[in-house]
Amino acid sequence: MSDRLLNFSAGPGTLPLSVIEQAREDLLSIGEAGAGICEISHRCKTYDEVHDGTIAHLKRLLGADDDWELLFVTGGASSQFFQIPMNFGGDADYVVTGTWAKKAAAEAKHFGSPRIAASSEETKFDRIPSELDLNPDARYLHLTTNNTVAGTQWHELPRSGAPLVLDVSSDILSRPFSLEGVSLLYAGAQKNLGPAGTTLVLVRKDFLASAKDDLPTMLSYKTHAAKGSRYNTPPVFPIYMVGLVAKWIEAQGGVAAMGERNQRKADALYAAIDGHDLYQGCAEVGSRSQMNVTFRLSDTSREAEFIAKAAEQGLAGLKGHRSVGGIRASIYNAMPEEGVAKLVEFMKEFAGA
Amino acid sequence: MSDRLLNFSAGPGTLPLSVIEQAREDLLSIGEAGAGICEISHRCKTYDEVHDGTIAHLKRLLGADDDWELLFVTGGASSQFFQIPMNFGGDADYVVTGTWAKKAAAEAKHFGSPRIAASSEETKFDRIPSELDLNPDARYLHLTTNNTVAGTQWHELPRSGAPLVLDVSSDILSRPFSLEGVSLLYAGAQKNLGPAGTTLVLVRKDFLASAKDDLPTMLSYKTHAAKGSRYNTPPVFPIYMVGLVAKWIEAQGGVAAMGERNQRKADALYAAIDGHDLYQGCAEVGSRSQMNVTFRLSDTSREAEFIAKAAEQGLAGLKGHRSVGGIRASIYNAMPEEGVAKLVEFMKEFAGA
Repeated sequence: MSDRLLNFSAGPGTLPLSVIEQAREDLLSIGEAGAGICEISHRCKTYDEVHDGTIAHLKRLLGADDDWELLFVTGGASSQFFQIPMNFGGDADYVVTGTWAKKAAAEAKHFGSPRIAASSEETKFDRIPSELDLNPDARYLHLTTNNTVAGTQWHELPRSGAPLVLDVSSDILSRPFSLEGVSLLYAGAQKNLGPAGTTLVLVRKDFLASAKDDLPTMLSYKTHAAKGSRYNTPPVFPIYMVGLVAKWIEAQGGVAAMGERNQRKADALYAAIDGHDLYQGCAEVGSRSQMNVTFRLSDTSREAEFIAKAAEQGLAGLKGHRSVGGIRASIYNAMPEEGVAKLVEFMKEFAGA
Repeated sequence: MSDRLLNFSAGPGTLPLSVIEQAREDLLSIGEAGAGICEISHRCKTYDEVHDGTIAHLKRLLGADDDWELLFVTGGASSQFFQIPMNFGGDADYVVTGTWAKKAAAEAKHFGSPRIAASSEETKFDRIPSELDLNPDARYLHLTTNNTVAGTQWHELPRSGAPLVLDVSSDILSRPFSLEGVSLLYAGAQKNLGPAGTTLVLVRKDFLASAKDDLPTMLSYKTHAAKGSRYNTPPVFPIYMVGLVAKWIEAQGGVAAMGERNQRKADALYAAIDGHDLYQGCAEVGSRSQMNVTFRLSDTSREAEFIAKAAEQGLAGLKGHRSVGGIRASIYNAMPEEGVAKLVEFMKEFAGA
């Protein structure tokens, strides 16, 4: 315990300590299997419970009923950037709100003619665009709900009439969320869900039915839906960990409780930023992210000192993304309120020094 | 310890206990990171050492010099079945020695006209075919070096003049192996390398240079080579575990020592099979696998009893693949000789009963 710091890493990010402790037990021996979680067949009874239980927990937390398939695939969100247009066609609308949204739109060009419905690149992705040129006949409308690099987040999703396809990698299960209008959402696990190594895809069955056939087996969502994400050996340990995190979220009171807690955490940090001239938030106020709080020091030459002194006090992972620099505090579900309070305290001290 | 059985699972398979113990430590806190192995950035110094160290260890064990790139990708060997012909073209030769080889050949049809150079399907894959109709001008010659379901293994690889592409998922690092004539090999981790969740690809740089461009970013081997397998967040924990296993193999004396030990293990088991009329090996003697020992009981109605009684004695995972039934003892690197001795002893007792 003593050598665990407060970890503000943007992803892979911190995990609940109780999840880590459980995993340490199960690595040696899980249930009645006589072997650790990494060593059991993906078709044995012990793993059946892990796998099916994880899917059931997540569907419940996401509010997804029998109209939905919840799949585990691999390759991170970056593989969804091509897999979605490969399965559904690339004549889609993309709103480019950051680095990842831009990459998603680029991959769709292999499978059609994606349209950029809006972009905030001109202002360095400091905001969610307010003017959108949406095509209701697009194959789908792709949005990145939270942008980890710039620290912006959609607080209300636009509707065009086209099916919504959402990259929710960095804010899944962080607050109550409606699936209305959504046809597919996906998330790399390593921010709010667990460790790196698996990607969650939630897809409406009617949308899935409209996907192309005659694709390489492993690239077709239909394969994974038909085989319950066990067409081949899935990434057992990452999925197991996601299951533990899902149980932890339920035990904390579910997404409603998460949302309230995350709001308090973000409010406290933004108040600290707005409370002193030394700090300048990077994102436009109305577009600020509840998950990744980005800011600069008015004297940017002191940023390295800020990061180093914070680390001395046990506040780790505060360096901004390498493409933009500055400071970034990622405060996903597993970051406790006390951790944010300690960072706020440090910011006040540092500004007063 | 007391609740860990001898685990003969075909994959995911047993891991060395020392690897499991190290992982339990590092899950809580690794090195100076102040966080567990699942919670650190894939671009931090601690993970740099894990990632680069794992690649270096594996290249050394595989005898691969600077002419080779060692990549970590995802999606299991099943994703390599399409990714290889997608990158290199599908006008290739395939030798169909089992379930997995057949699936590999099928995926190549999406990208060209694969030829079946030989198949042992008529005899239920009980042997490695001796008559091969090889095309020296094929884009490559694909072989599955060890066949987990039927329990056969190539003991000398054929050469056609075409680049060799090998699925070595189930016998990588199990014995000394020459890279001569090989242009690419791949292995899902969950048999001899670590847990499920990452796939090793070793590819000659000159062969890689001949790969197609203009592919989806994540599907191009060139992407992963250019970015050292960190274009996006890799499956950190599975790669970390593979690194521990690689160190363990080195500490055991490397692949030469592994090969000797595995030979002794296989010899002991096959002697037990051949030593009593109750047991009948599934594979032709000359094609027997050193990794997956498959057999039937002459009275097949007693197989369920055999599996149940073995489990009572702490010998787990002996059920044959669901497509063929029977008994299968998978004796990968991490299965100790004492485990095999205990199984042999049980077989003698059971046959005498």
